[in-house]
Amino acid sequence: MSLLVIGTLALDKIETPYASRDEALGGSATYFAYASANFNPVSLVGVVGTDFPDDELLALNSHGVDTSGVEIADGKTFRWAGRYEANWNTRHTLDTQLGVFEHWDPKVVGDLTNAKYVFLANAAPAVQAKALDQCKGAEFVMLDTMNLWIDIAKDELIAVLKRVNGVVLNDEEATMLTGETNLIKAAKAVLALGPDFVVLKKGEHGAFLVGKDVHFSLPAYPVEKVIDPTGAGDSFAGGFMGYIASCQNTSPCTLKRAMLYGTVTASFCVEGFSMDVLASKKRGMVEERFNELLQITTI
Amino acid sequence: MSLLVIGTLALDKIETPYASRDEALGGSATYFAYASANFNPVSLVGVVGTDFPDDELLALNSHGVDTSGVEIADGKTFRWAGRYEANWNTRHTLDTQLGVFEHWDPKVVGDLTNAKYVFLANAAPAVQAKALDQCKGAEFVMLDTMNLWIDIAKDELIAVLKRVNGVVLNDEEATMLTGETNLIKAAKAVLALGPDFVVLKKGEHGAFLVGKDVHFSLPAYPVEKVIDPTGAGDSFAGGFMGYIASCQNTSPCTLKRAMLYGTVTASFCVEGFSMDVLASKKRGMVEERFNELLQITTI
Repeated sequence: MSLLVIGTLALDKIETPYASRDEALGGSATYFAYASANFNPVSLVGVVGTDFPDDELLALNSHGVDTSGVEIADGKTFRWAGRYEANWNTRHTLDTQLGVFEHWDPKVVGDLTNAKYVFLANAAPAVQAKALDQCKGAEFVMLDTMNLWIDIAKDELIAVLKRVNGVVLNDEEATMLTGETNLIKAAKAVLALGPDFVVLKKGEHGAFLVGKDVHFSLPAYPVEKVIDPTGAGDSFAGGFMGYIASCQNTSPCTLKRAMLYGTVTASFCVEGFSMDVLASKKRGMVEERFNELLQITTI
Repeated sequence: MSLLVIGTLALDKIETPYASRDEALGGSATYFAYASANFNPVSLVGVVGTDFPDDELLALNSHGVDTSGVEIADGKTFRWAGRYEANWNTRHTLDTQLGVFEHWDPKVVGDLTNAKYVFLANAAPAVQAKALDQCKGAEFVMLDTMNLWIDIAKDELIAVLKRVNGVVLNDEEATMLTGETNLIKAAKAVLALGPDFVVLKKGEHGAFLVGKDVHFSLPAYPVEKVIDPTGAGDSFAGGFMGYIASCQNTSPCTLKRAMLYGTVTASFCVEGFSMDVLASKKRGMVEERFNELLQITTI
């Protein structure tokens, strides 16, 4: 039942063709935590600098996120700056300042080591492996990654993939990791690397799930006004895994419903900057959109 | 119950990164006819030159297509040559020889004028309008088009759009027609032009249907080996409308199921060159894949 996410907390600078935001709360683990907290209590392991606003930690707490595992280290918080093109599919990274994240040695201690559900949010595969080593109670582990690690740390990534139950990848990452441009073939090639299932995300085109005993494909929720796509993938993972943790069950039926919860959660995320919309949605509002998505995808 | 398609019969030259085919049966109405005949008797109105192989007309007949409305005119059959990139999404038109299609004056005569279900396959909007004028019994009309007509005959196209029940467009065409890059907004803008519903096709990413009283989104069937994407859209339309004609019913539930039949039919189309696979599938095989698609898209 206990859910743990290990990854980045960041301060983002975002530019879109329509607006911009500076010093916005970001980071893979932060998005995941806000997204999953609607479903299940969640603990966060990560690192911030001394410049990280106390208010943000308090806001996480009041949203139901346990931040006892967030280390405050001497130095600056991880900062990322990016700009989106009008089609939302093209993202330019303008700046990356790793700060305290650069030499972070993840520590999972005390009760956190008993978490049954563990999400290794995007980070260097070596960091993910080191964190996972400490998760003694882990029974269901999922992992996210990014093109950078496939490029510079593929062997380490493949080693961690053997130790997880599920992996979330976007289309580009799946092709990069496997060399397959056909996404079904790519997903199957990822399965051959070890995980029980893979969730392949295609942004506005939805996502599909392929596992040893499950195959499910789902369109995206039709968002009419995207404000900021940052964190959509992490929010998807948060909704997906938060729901699974709340069910204490990983059956194919649960995984399929989790796909809808992930999709709905990601749709809230992109409707605002940072956690603006994500943090404002209560479970009832999630259920409402879940029902709407179910209706437009069911004959 | 009677179904009529008006559009092109062609001889195609197709190049893909893996194979090629010359003098292959193609054309918007031909693909539609082969795709719909599995569901409902269909009549074809179009024009070919004296060089069109008799065998192809006989094959259409033996597949259940009434070709009495196919005019054989002095001159050459419409020919199209194209090349696909490895990602299948980029298609280069290498050559277009309109032949007898250039000055074709569509004639819908006799029993064909009583058809209740009419599909205006891709052709110049003026030709579509002229054909529709003759369809006195038409009760449910759908239309397809292409970027060329949006570019050079937008006013005529908009005039025909006011006269049809449904329209099928791909994502690029919908954006071009409406100026909206968000596809949901684009679909709604198309509705504002007159049709009761629009089917927006996104190739490997599926399709969605938006109408005054229906909204349905469906992923594509996961084809692992694409051979030739030519005719996928026309096959989708054929499966979609063939099923509707067989139901003699255009309720939201019928339209939703028709989306699955369209998707399944298009998936067969792309698994071979020309009509190779499409023509070989009996209704039972369609039902089998329908059930498979239903299973992977239903929680």
